[in-house]
Amino acid sequence: MGLEGLLYPKSVALIGASPKEGKLGNVLFKNMSTFPGRFYPVNPNYEEIEGIKCYPNVSSLPEVVDLAVVIIPADPALRVIEECGRVGVRNVVVITAGFKEAGPEGAERERKLVEIAKRYGINVLGPNCFGLISTEVGLNTTFALKTALPGNIAFLSQSGAFCTSVLDWAWEEKLGFSHFVSLGNKAVLNESHFLKPFAEDPDTKVIVAYLEGIADGEAFIRIAREVVKTTPIVVLKAGRTEAGARAVSSHTGTLAGSNVAYEAAFRKCGVIMARNVEELFDYAYVLAKQPLPKGRRVGVMTNAGGAGVMASDAVEEYELELARFSEETMKTLREFLPPAANIYNPVDILGDAHPDRYERALDLVINDPNVDMVVALTAPAPLIPFGVLSRIVAAAKEKAEKPLTVSFMAGELGEEAEETLREAGIPSYFDPARAVRALAVLHRYAEVRKKEWKEPRRLKVDRSKVRELLARAHREGRTQLGVEAMEILSAYGIPTAPGRLARTPKEAGEIAKAVGDEVVLKLVSPELTHKTDVGGVTLGLRPEEVEAAAQEMLTRIAARFPQVRIEGLLVQRQLPPGQELIIGSVRDPQFGPLVMFGFGGIFVEILRDVVFGVAPLSPDEARELVESMRGYSLLRGARGRKGVAVDAVVEAVERISHLVYDFPEIVELDVNPLLAYPDGVVAVDLRITVSREVT
Amino acid sequence: MGLEGLLYPKSVALIGASPKEGKLGNVLFKNMSTFPGRFYPVNPNYEEIEGIKCYPNVSSLPEVVDLAVVIIPADPALRVIEECGRVGVRNVVVITAGFKEAGPEGAERERKLVEIAKRYGINVLGPNCFGLISTEVGLNTTFALKTALPGNIAFLSQSGAFCTSVLDWAWEEKLGFSHFVSLGNKAVLNESHFLKPFAEDPDTKVIVAYLEGIADGEAFIRIAREVVKTTPIVVLKAGRTEAGARAVSSHTGTLAGSNVAYEAAFRKCGVIMARNVEELFDYAYVLAKQPLPKGRRVGVMTNAGGAGVMASDAVEEYELELARFSEETMKTLREFLPPAANIYNPVDILGDAHPDRYERALDLVINDPNVDMVVALTAPAPLIPFGVLSRIVAAAKEKAEKPLTVSFMAGELGEEAEETLREAGIPSYFDPARAVRALAVLHRYAEVRKKEWKEPRRLKVDRSKVRELLARAHREGRTQLGVEAMEILSAYGIPTAPGRLARTPKEAGEIAKAVGDEVVLKLVSPELTHKTDVGGVTLGLRPEEVEAAAQEMLTRIAARFPQVRIEGLLVQRQLPPGQELIIGSVRDPQFGPLVMFGFGGIFVEILRDVVFGVAPLSPDEARELVESMRGYSLLRGARGRKGVAVDAVVEAVERISHLVYDFPEIVELDVNPLLAYPDGVVAVDLRITVSREVT
Repeated sequence: MGLEGLLYPKSVALIGASPKEGKLGNVLFKNMSTFPGRFYPVNPNYEEIEGIKCYPNVSSLPEVVDLAVVIIPADPALRVIEECGRVGVRNVVVITAGFKEAGPEGAERERKLVEIAKRYGINVLGPNCFGLISTEVGLNTTFALKTALPGNIAFLSQSGAFCTSVLDWAWEEKLGFSHFVSLGNKAVLNESHFLKPFAEDPDTKVIVAYLEGIADGEAFIRIAREVVKTTPIVVLKAGRTEAGARAVSSHTGTLAGSNVAYEAAFRKCGVIMARNVEELFDYAYVLAKQPLPKGRRVGVMTNAGGAGVMASDAVEEYELELARFSEETMKTLREFLPPAANIYNPVDILGDAHPDRYERALDLVINDPNVDMVVALTAPAPLIPFGVLSRIVAAAKEKAEKPLTVSFMAGELGEEAEETLREAGIPSYFDPARAVRALAVLHRYAEVRKKEWKEPRRLKVDRSKVRELLARAHREGRTQLGVEAMEILSAYGIPTAPGRLARTPKEAGEIAKAVGDEVVLKLVSPELTHKTDVGGVTLGLRPEEVEAAAQEMLTRIAARFPQVRIEGLLVQRQLPPGQELIIGSVRDPQFGPLVMFGFGGIFVEILRDVVFGVAPLSPDEARELVESMRGYSLLRGARGRKGVAVDAVVEAVERISHLVYDFPEIVELDVNPLLAYPDGVVAVDLRITVSREVT
Repeated sequence: MGLEGLLYPKSVALIGASPKEGKLGNVLFKNMSTFPGRFYPVNPNYEEIEGIKCYPNVSSLPEVVDLAVVIIPADPALRVIEECGRVGVRNVVVITAGFKEAGPEGAERERKLVEIAKRYGINVLGPNCFGLISTEVGLNTTFALKTALPGNIAFLSQSGAFCTSVLDWAWEEKLGFSHFVSLGNKAVLNESHFLKPFAEDPDTKVIVAYLEGIADGEAFIRIAREVVKTTPIVVLKAGRTEAGARAVSSHTGTLAGSNVAYEAAFRKCGVIMARNVEELFDYAYVLAKQPLPKGRRVGVMTNAGGAGVMASDAVEEYELELARFSEETMKTLREFLPPAANIYNPVDILGDAHPDRYERALDLVINDPNVDMVVALTAPAPLIPFGVLSRIVAAAKEKAEKPLTVSFMAGELGEEAEETLREAGIPSYFDPARAVRALAVLHRYAEVRKKEWKEPRRLKVDRSKVRELLARAHREGRTQLGVEAMEILSAYGIPTAPGRLARTPKEAGEIAKAVGDEVVLKLVSPELTHKTDVGGVTLGLRPEEVEAAAQEMLTRIAARFPQVRIEGLLVQRQLPPGQELIIGSVRDPQFGPLVMFGFGGIFVEILRDVVFGVAPLSPDEARELVESMRGYSLLRGARGRKGVAVDAVVEAVERISHLVYDFPEIVELDVNPLLAYPDGVVAVDLRITVSREVT
């Protein structure tokens, strides 16, 4: 279903229009009556409102409108929306509250609303929302006193109140929007539905969203990945922390995904995460207004040493790089700058600089081939009025077509610069660090754009084998699988330690002889999954010792845990020491299976030093995940330690990601340890939790 | 030397006053002529300037002024300062540039300046500075067009340009200062000299500094520790990163200490570090205006769910805690709030709230005994004008005497609140996270105030033994000491692995029999300090095997490294496996010896996961350092692992900190590993680098 009629309607109706001052129906009437297209107020109690003909109902309208806005109470609203459906209206904004957010009765209403929308194929925005503004067609269906200014930012918000805040603030900041959409309860339309229409809108340069949850994680990732190729997406995901997430669920009933899942998901699809409101709009502004840098090298211009130092700190903290100027640039700077000036980056043209000196230096810096972007810092100085300066930086940025941000470290003195800077799309902050941060987000998005998004591979794996093993566990009513299920890993091409399940001590002894010179005996019992804690593992046995050891273990465990079912003993070849790794998986309610990777032992147990990705992973994603781990250099071999087969590690991560994606009934999985050697990896132990339902 | 005459002068002279418009001497003349005390312009070329009598030189002034401000060129300035000294002027502000910052010639001038200042006991501020402002006495000795507004912030800046920026910006923000001091080259007076005078000033509530380096680290720590008991200190240390530090040294010649040293030093003395300009002044504002919270529990008030979620995220991110309201509070909230409101923290009184509802809810929240501070969030809503709201929050804060910050998430609509909030000392930010961050710094400072600052213990150690060992190394021209110097550790009460140096294989065999059942043989050679890398360590020898093994090792090493001097072999008892720790030390140019602590092995080698403290450490500081390590829980015993003797670890850290403090010639030290067991610690290996000069 296209959103053309919702975002660019030619005709709109307001269900619940009112002539009474102060009533919501009147505020909306006034806001919508300035719509340059065709506007029809609907209210059976009036013939006309403020000179505009009023219609008794949707059926009586002279045409099938592109969009109907509903503000009448919830129960009649449902009937009107159904009427909309019958006459063929395909886009409805439901501002009315009293749905999912209002207890079980409201939830039932919302269910009905969804059902009506489905039956008639209606795009419903809301309910319980603040409406939308499309500055391109001049439509304001909100009860805001002022509409949005036209601009290049498309804004989505899951909080209606935040919409009013942003509108009021943006007016003061003269920040403009192409679209301004309040999502409300997201009963039908959610954030994902708007991404493509916004990306296809030539007036939209950046998509910005305040979200408390994501309705359909998989769709969001798929669509966002496509969209970010042309249009950046910045999201402030509220409810990131435990405290924040509790606040979310008390207020909207959204089941908030854990932050780790959002971080992994946003990384997967190139969405930029803002941590707070300041970042959200700082990022939006530069992404809407500035070209992208070719690399990470920043040229810093200043007339004050201190500012240069602060900017240099920020350059490093935001993972950019101070540019090294070309010989040419430095030579010329040396020629015309006074001897006390600094010709290296940051260029300090000193406090006594005339505008000429500023202009020449900036021209050299911004056009240096080693400079990808520029931050221009200026403390108040008698000879450089900020008005003149603003025209210099605006012209330089325009000509060089490189990103440029500004920190005019002033108050009143800087005011004369504001308009020129705004027209040139140059943000200026008092704090040099903030000006650098704005450049950093441009670089981050440039990296996203450069990335080749490869799909996961089609792996040759034995799906039917895994299906069979999981089905058997299901039949037996088991939700915990252990080392006996190593075949699941083999079926997905992950090397496992040679070995087999023995039902009797005698069989154990026989298997041992086939398996190797030194073996490990592991208890297999669905009820005793922490087998090391109960004496269920014996290491370093020679094959001829195995039968007796098996007998002893079984007797001992049976005596200690008489009620417990013992399936047998796994006889595994004992492997030489290798680098202990862990590959795991958990299922996130919004994004599905996540793959976890890290060092084993205390790294995971105490330090929880692991990384997460959203399954399934492409080979590149698996590699990025492995490389993003702290201490990755240890895998490569560092400080006299031998490295391991990183390619094999990466492939194991990739294969596990396919396994947990292909079998949604696997709700948790731990391969721990996976031993890594210079020539490959071997999975040694496994725990899987499966859901009771086969999906 | 007191700074009374510098900060609160009764009489001031301006050396270099000028009647000529646009000249610096005229700008300063105008700024200083409004001084309500006695003001004397000095310039031999004029009889009077703008109606004020002008004097030819300092000697001809009718009195010995409290303060002279010098703006004449550098060479004559030196002569005038000497004249000041002769006639008894004890405070001089040198605005003139051309000193250390201006090459070798300037450095020579600065040396002379220091010499003059010492000879006459003159407090020199600068040179190459922007001057100072003392709003309390109405003095402005800067060339700023506007002076500072009176207020409670004392500001120190190492950058003159940053002073002009802050002044202009503060004027617009209506932010006031008690003192405003540009430090310039810090030839004589530096940041440390101002801390106590500011703390003793009843009008100063917070000390704020922009610094690129600290002149005397030890003095700064000692004085700051005293000062923070009554007055908070916030420092923006620029040049924190490698890039930033390079920028510093290209611009002021300060040798910037490494960031790790600054962090450790500021922690040691309770100084709050700001990472950027925004933090610096956000922190200054609340610390100047608000009471301190008793704990970390935040009450959040909102009329918009989304804002509450964002604030909750920030509460956790800034390590505060969402308060749990008392039963009483929740009961009353439930009684009068509408059913859809949230009575738990964050309290959401909904968008349709009247001021009455806001006032009652805020009254309950701020006076709840479980609430230490409050953040009040408000999105624009038709029924609550921000003007009314600002009076409500101001009154509530005043009455409850608890910290309160505000996020009025609005633009123009919020303007009517500004004055009331400013008068009440309540900061308001559009971003809820920033309002929470301001509360967090109040809590941080409250913790600093609560802390008992204990001095390091006087340890019973054998200093003369260490002195003797270091003197011997010095005599022998050695700068590298190794495991043979373990006695240094024993002398400081740190348990070491039993063992002794053997000069011959035979002696090695004899020692082995006395040392234990299993021993380690370690090569001792000042030139081969990485002994494991050259086959200089053999583990697991039985005493009877030692003589032969020693012979073999000596022969092998002598063949491979024929030029190398071998001192002998250390025979050490082989210890059972324990938790490998590392205690190290490096010397910071500004703060002296730093102690490093962390896990051994890959933690330190690959992850560089270590913590630093400034020596010497008190027992509490040593404990805090150990506890601040990531994975500290591993030492305590966690997840089925046995813990180690944490007290012994802490004491070893403390003792090492004394060792490196007592012997400044130890420039680097590594005890690696220190093995920790459930019943104690043992140092197993050691490397020390000593300076060529005995200090």
